[in-house]
Amino acid sequence: MKKKIAVLPGDGIGPEVTWQAIKALDAVGDRFDHYFEYCFADVGATAIDKTGSPLPDLTLEACMNADAVLFGAIGDPKYDNDPNAKVRPEQGLLALRKGLGLYANIRPVTTYSNLLHLSPLKENKVKDVDLVIFRELTGGIYFGEKGRAEDNSSAFDTCLYKREEIERITHLSFQHARQRRKKVTLVDKANVLENSRLWRHVVQELSTGYPDIELDYMFVDNAAMQLIQWPKQFDVVLTSNMFGDILSDEASVIAGSMGLLPSASIGLHTSMFEPIHGSYPQAAGSDIANPMAAILSAAMLLDSLELFEEAKVIRAAVTTLLEKGIGTPELSPRITYGTTQIGDTIAHMI
Amino acid sequence: MKKKIAVLPGDGIGPEVTWQAIKALDAVGDRFDHYFEYCFADVGATAIDKTGSPLPDLTLEACMNADAVLFGAIGDPKYDNDPNAKVRPEQGLLALRKGLGLYANIRPVTTYSNLLHLSPLKENKVKDVDLVIFRELTGGIYFGEKGRAEDNSSAFDTCLYKREEIERITHLSFQHARQRRKKVTLVDKANVLENSRLWRHVVQELSTGYPDIELDYMFVDNAAMQLIQWPKQFDVVLTSNMFGDILSDEASVIAGSMGLLPSASIGLHTSMFEPIHGSYPQAAGSDIANPMAAILSAAMLLDSLELFEEAKVIRAAVTTLLEKGIGTPELSPRITYGTTQIGDTIAHMI
Ligand SMILES: CC(C)[C@H](C(=O)O)[C@@H](O)C(=O)O
Ligand SMILES: CC(C)[C@H](C(=O)O)[C@@H](O)C(=O)O
Repeated sequence: MKKKIAVLPGDGIGPEVTWQAIKALDAVGDRFDHYFEYCFADVGATAIDKTGSPLPDLTLEACMNADAVLFGAIGDPKYDNDPNAKVRPEQGLLALRKGLGLYANIRPVTTYSNLLHLSPLKENKVKDVDLVIFRELTGGIYFGEKGRAEDNSSAFDTCLYKREEIERITHLSFQHARQRRKKVTLVDKANVLENSRLWRHVVQELSTGYPDIELDYMFVDNAAMQLIQWPKQFDVVLTSNMFGDILSDEASVIAGSMGLLPSASIGLHTSMFEPIHGSYPQAAGSDIANPMAAILSAAMLLDSLELFEEAKVIRAAVTTLLEKGIGTPELSPRITYGTTQIGDTIAHMI
Repeated sequence: MKKKIAVLPGDGIGPEVTWQAIKALDAVGDRFDHYFEYCFADVGATAIDKTGSPLPDLTLEACMNADAVLFGAIGDPKYDNDPNAKVRPEQGLLALRKGLGLYANIRPVTTYSNLLHLSPLKENKVKDVDLVIFRELTGGIYFGEKGRAEDNSSAFDTCLYKREEIERITHLSFQHARQRRKKVTLVDKANVLENSRLWRHVVQELSTGYPDIELDYMFVDNAAMQLIQWPKQFDVVLTSNMFGDILSDEASVIAGSMGLLPSASIGLHTSMFEPIHGSYPQAAGSDIANPMAAILSAAMLLDSLELFEEAKVIRAAVTTLLEKGIGTPELSPRITYGTTQIGDTIAHMI
């Protein structure tokens, strides 16, 4: 099988972890006789520095022509504390989501039994947590009309949802729940927000088409508590863009390390796969960043191409390393490896 | 000193915990020679059942005429899962916030050394946590223009902030930080939202008037992680209405029990004090609800009347009970007391 993959390494540690994911994909290609053709393109602060734009046209084009997109990370502190900066790396990511129609961000949170001690939560709370967040990614307050008065006397953002935007991610999440513990929790703020009431209305309606799936509702403030208090209760969490942004980062803490968590963004045109951690500029170039999240994102990419066996092999290699006590420094492992060494070892194991 | 207090017991366990707070206030009155005059009024589901409105005019009037408001809790499950209900208990609370101009919700999160085991977080994470969240309470997406298409094809909510709304809570939070560890963390989503960029702009500007206070910035998704990962880093957290709703509930988990956390809502006309827990209808009437959060809210009320010594006496009584291992069932205490027994004991100790 031949597949085209657009690779967007981005900023900070993005390039170095993405590189390890490519090694894993190449090893899979060798073993299973596939050929992955990569097209590298710029995004984020790197792209601004080179072209002035955080998402150059060529990059979007490369993604549109690809079977899947492998993404590193973006963000540079020089843009963060200037409320008046006109061009920002994040705009590249948002434009990419919109351009590719990446309507559903999927973030699994699972734990590794020998890494439970890394979690700030007690081990009995964390053991066997297995949840996945479905975050709507191209609507809501991220993309609604917004503005600021020139004299800074006021500013506004609009959270708008259309029925279709809610429908497509709802279907995806219910279908996904079928492969799991068959429970969907809709998280919203229906006691305050009109758009949340629309979410409840639409999701309630569609749920009748999935009589095998249990649906429950939770207010976002309560969900922010429950995720920490009783994380095991969750199977599939379905939510809007902004709430999903907050809850999925919160949930990532459960696992004890950001360096282990992959994500997928399912799109209308193509899909994109990225580690959930950021660009972590302080660590860039030091060969200490954990590439496992990027490598596990490559596994999700393979799943999306229906290369399930191939994805499993990658996951098994990661699990084996962790079980042997091997990892990058932030895992305080028994045996410390650098970024490259982890990538090479996993490629060898495949 | 004579003070008028409007008492709004509300729904579920609201009345029974509020009653214990009144006992504490009366005991304080006896000991320090103050007279608290109470005016009881309806709010929430109870008020809907009686009058059709979740905030009857008489209730708002009673609050406007009071030196302070003591609030129980509102909410009834019969209203929660109907996305089309026209009247909801929460509307009463929102109307009250708007009517009284309760622009700043203050939620301290502190821990008791002999209750650390109740937290889902590891004890070393939780020990000595001492933070306070300043949540803007009468603006943002809660009160902006909103609407839903009749055919349910779309719905929207608007998050609008005016400069003055940001200014007044910013001043309050910086003044408060002066009495504490002198650090304010502004939590927003300035990489995406225009209103967050206004927050940054205004807060940055005003912070020059507080050169003794350290100001830092954090994105809300990151804050949701940091609150669990390193809660001790926070002193004063300053944020908007919606983010504050989510983060303050999340932070409440740190303490291990919702039953211990009070809150104050500072207003233009008067101020309101309430436990952070909800109406917990399942427990209503069973004499098991923890009244300590309500009692500690009464202590915050006394602080607002500048009765600092009186407030201290209440807090000391609560701490003494907890140190003796006495509490309501959810604390799994050494000696279990009912709601009334806790209230009576604290009143006796004052
Ligand atoms: C960088 C930022 C715009 C982005 C978001 O808020 O969506 C990030 O936090 C994420 O979750 O991917
Ligand atoms: C009941 C609800 C409207 C309210 C809010 O969202 O403000 C509650 O969650 C709170 O935090 O007081």
